[in-house]
Amino acid sequence: MSRYAVGVDFGTESGRAVLVDVADGRELAVAVHPYRNGVIDERLPSPDDDVRLEPDWALQDPADYVRTLRATVPRLLAEAGVDPGDVIGIGIDATACTMLPTLADGTPLCALDRFRRNPHAWVKLWKHHAAQPEADRINAVARERGEPWLERYGGKISSEWFFPKALQILDEAPEVYRAADRLIEAADWIVWQLTDRETRNNCTAGYKALWSRRDGFPDESYFAALHPDFRRVVDEKMSRGVVLIGRRAGRLCARAAAWTGLREGTAVAVANVDAHVSVPAATVTEPGTMVVIMGTSNCHLVLGERPVPVEGMCGVVEDGVVPGRFGFEAGQSGVGDIFAWFAEHAVPPGYHEAARRRGVSVHEVLEAEAAGLRPGQSGLLALDWWNGNRSVLVDADLAGLLVGPTLATRAPEVYRALIEATAFGTRVIIDAFEAKGVRVDGIVACGGLPEANRLLVQVYADVTGREFRLAASRQTPALGSAMHAAVAAGTEAGGYDSIVEASRHMAHLRDRAYRPVPAHHAVYDELYREYLRLHDLFGRGGMDVMKRLRRLRLQALGDPSRGVPPVLANRRPPGTPLDRR
Amino acid sequence: MSRYAVGVDFGTESGRAVLVDVADGRELAVAVHPYRNGVIDERLPSPDDDVRLEPDWALQDPADYVRTLRATVPRLLAEAGVDPGDVIGIGIDATACTMLPTLADGTPLCALDRFRRNPHAWVKLWKHHAAQPEADRINAVARERGEPWLERYGGKISSEWFFPKALQILDEAPEVYRAADRLIEAADWIVWQLTDRETRNNCTAGYKALWSRRDGFPDESYFAALHPDFRRVVDEKMSRGVVLIGRRAGRLCARAAAWTGLREGTAVAVANVDAHVSVPAATVTEPGTMVVIMGTSNCHLVLGERPVPVEGMCGVVEDGVVPGRFGFEAGQSGVGDIFAWFAEHAVPPGYHEAARRRGVSVHEVLEAEAAGLRPGQSGLLALDWWNGNRSVLVDADLAGLLVGPTLATRAPEVYRALIEATAFGTRVIIDAFEAKGVRVDGIVACGGLPEANRLLVQVYADVTGREFRLAASRQTPALGSAMHAAVAAGTEAGGYDSIVEASRHMAHLRDRAYRPVPAHHAVYDELYREYLRLHDLFGRGGMDVMKRLRRLRLQALGDPSRGVPPVLANRRPPGTPLDRR
Repeated sequence: MSRYAVGVDFGTESGRAVLVDVADGRELAVAVHPYRNGVIDERLPSPDDDVRLEPDWALQDPADYVRTLRATVPRLLAEAGVDPGDVIGIGIDATACTMLPTLADGTPLCALDRFRRNPHAWVKLWKHHAAQPEADRINAVARERGEPWLERYGGKISSEWFFPKALQILDEAPEVYRAADRLIEAADWIVWQLTDRETRNNCTAGYKALWSRRDGFPDESYFAALHPDFRRVVDEKMSRGVVLIGRRAGRLCARAAAWTGLREGTAVAVANVDAHVSVPAATVTEPGTMVVIMGTSNCHLVLGERPVPVEGMCGVVEDGVVPGRFGFEAGQSGVGDIFAWFAEHAVPPGYHEAARRRGVSVHEVLEAEAAGLRPGQSGLLALDWWNGNRSVLVDADLAGLLVGPTLATRAPEVYRALIEATAFGTRVIIDAFEAKGVRVDGIVACGGLPEANRLLVQVYADVTGREFRLAASRQTPALGSAMHAAVAAGTEAGGYDSIVEASRHMAHLRDRAYRPVPAHHAVYDELYREYLRLHDLFGRGGMDVMKRLRRLRLQALGDPSRGVPPVLANRRPPGTPLDRR
Repeated sequence: MSRYAVGVDFGTESGRAVLVDVADGRELAVAVHPYRNGVIDERLPSPDDDVRLEPDWALQDPADYVRTLRATVPRLLAEAGVDPGDVIGIGIDATACTMLPTLADGTPLCALDRFRRNPHAWVKLWKHHAAQPEADRINAVARERGEPWLERYGGKISSEWFFPKALQILDEAPEVYRAADRLIEAADWIVWQLTDRETRNNCTAGYKALWSRRDGFPDESYFAALHPDFRRVVDEKMSRGVVLIGRRAGRLCARAAAWTGLREGTAVAVANVDAHVSVPAATVTEPGTMVVIMGTSNCHLVLGERPVPVEGMCGVVEDGVVPGRFGFEAGQSGVGDIFAWFAEHAVPPGYHEAARRRGVSVHEVLEAEAAGLRPGQSGLLALDWWNGNRSVLVDADLAGLLVGPTLATRAPEVYRALIEATAFGTRVIIDAFEAKGVRVDGIVACGGLPEANRLLVQVYADVTGREFRLAASRQTPALGSAMHAAVAAGTEAGGYDSIVEASRHMAHLRDRAYRPVPAHHAVYDELYREYLRLHDLFGRGGMDVMKRLRRLRLQALGDPSRGVPPVLANRRPPGTPLDRR
């Protein structure tokens, strides 16, 4: 008798759910639900539509998560023709840190009339960057006090994380902070809705909220040094009861059973983060193989035996990805979005027309042309910092650089140079890991980008000198969540007793291997040396022109004060988007 | 009774002629003649059309010069309704060094059946860059021998000049070299056709052929060191009889009178170079005011009292522009062609559509948007080396650089950054002149670019901190040639006895002055410091990435040998122009 599991991945613009066969991970049905309110970054979706957001804000509506559950899961069951009684578990993952304030019963504050018009009552999406001043304070105070946990996060935490966002609420909307009985990750909040029981997963706690299994959260004295009213944030607004991923969070409550069409009592897995949950879904449960989730940005995850400090990594968390291992995370803050920027803002009409004629995207036209070039042929080299640099420099104030254009330079050459630049950025990260003894022998890529762009994967293989494989699933996060659901259900229900076992049965790779071409790798070795020289010169203070340009830019925009990340500060520069106004 | 003069400017793609009133320079008629064979850079215009040129070649057909005279001058007379008897002189200028081999009677070798299919028999246009190996040899041997004239040319001569082109003929087509009784500048050849008498003007001799009034040409021993058969190039193929500009070359011969409709015996001025002849036509005959001819490239001319060595200038020639003064020349090898490259290859469809809708060029759309930005607002800074760097670095192997792009960067911001970069490049040149005591108090701009782009001129004023004026004429070279014609005719014929006098009466400025805005100048001072840091780092050897990229590029293209300038080496990179193939 077949057993099934459901995984739901709550992304930035939409949620996607899969129903898979527990025996082999076969995907029987997929359902996607675009959020009604999408990313809220201009005005709140209030009836009057009159609350405008500052330029660096990014919110979500928690009602969209519930709507996603109600829209997708019943559809999966219907499409697959599966009896809900054969679905042994449901698991979910979400972006992180994506967090919200709620009442003690889980009601989001933004659902209350009195807070509906207050932006701080809504879900702060991962890419909400308005808490930079708070992140600066958190980093400065931690450095002053020599906080031991700082090393686990490469020496610096991001404005995207939990405490900067929480502290911004306290700083800017103390009434919201006071009214919030809980501050919680969206992923945990969704599991709460499914189980009627609050849990906190160790993946977001570890990677985004400074928690570790050995040391717990930072001391109260540290939080008090940030703000007197922040001293007891953990005990008043959060919970020290952190549950490991792979465990069962609880069982499906009656209300959620009605939403989803699943049986009440179905096992519900502890929540997970989209990137991290992809690792076992990409077949990786042991050290030695890096998983790169390639999309608008790149996320690099690799398992290790020891919690060594790696330059500029986002974090290392024990049991954060796979139990018994240290999960290392690093990232590149701009990848697919740089290619998208290029395609939209720097490619002349001819290529767009060619794309229209052939019925393909302009990316495909550029890729086909770029694939005909040999390494080194463009004469171009770029620094892939259009959206700042996450790893290893951890510096959002950096910006892009292109060297080498001539009057003969054509768009596909720049396109390829941008692809190469992101590959060099990944190689810097691999080198940083290996310098500390964290092995990266091979790489598995997943995410939307490698699906669509074979040249990209080959360039990455050629640049890094490592074989690339692609995860078989096009829905790795949702598959990973379904795998965790099978583990939450356990062997007694027809599932698995560990994510390692689940991965062995349910996760697969595609057949094609992208092996480095030795002649290309040799040229890229030379180009990589040049990349490193530029990287270190512009990124480590030798030539600080990017920072000075940023300062002049902020002065020109009349906004010299807050340390707003450039991406957001420039989101709508006056006088530019012309035909998009 | 009114007196008139005709000036004809032989450009790259066409010739343009003006008929002006000698009293006040008023232009009564203008006629333009596009060359039938244009720039010959793919295949020779032979009947079989089967002689292909190497990628870095650029030729012209001397028959096009004669066709221009025949097409334009009669049209001027007809349109203006002027009696040929009232035309007191004709003067011409051309691009330089643009040179050709001829028989002793002036017949171009390419007009002979036996040489028609030999590319070396045709006119080598100024932008013919295939003589780079010869230029390298000329520079190396000059440095080894400590040739004293090298200092007059900023320490390095260009592949565009006379002796590299002549030596290339000897190297690659000794039969053409042997058959050539004369090697001559196109401008002098045209005057020869007009007067039936060979003359050599001191402007091209001085700026392009290493001649000076005090020292003449380099020694024979130097030429012999380049190639044994080159020893007597001056005496065998050229002439030591160099005539100063402003003099009369001769009088119109019967054949040329028939071509032009002018009277036989009309005064013909000594030939001139398009840029240099523009100086008095832009009202400048004294030190202190720089003339910038702004077009696809920028040419900077300023007069001085002494022949001081200025870093990276193209040359200093006594009497080269105005008698009694030292004329200094510097240049930027890419300006308008960088903007054109950008508009064609890096601007998305929206701006092109807007241009179409409004019935203007995409440059106008970009300029309007860019004009709305404040200095520093784009956060961008560029090095304007898309076509290498002429002054002050004299390095064709340099390439472009853009620092600062983010995901919020839009095309008009890059467009403005490119304009600013060329303005910074001009400021470097001004600084180099002033460092040696050659004053640049104010600037007069002429050429196609400032006509079309007010933002450009204002940015130049703001960046340099100097007032810019525009020459009144839209045909400054042709006007300058007409002025020289009036001088060649002399006061006795109703003309002038010096170019200073002619300039005082015939040249004018527009009323509008572009004054630097102090607040903008202050921001540009800061940006200029950053520009200089990048300029010196990438241009003076500290960071030689551009050269390494170029080497890798040539390797990838399978052409590691000849020192071909990158522009030309990349002219048709395989797999790029897509919709333009």
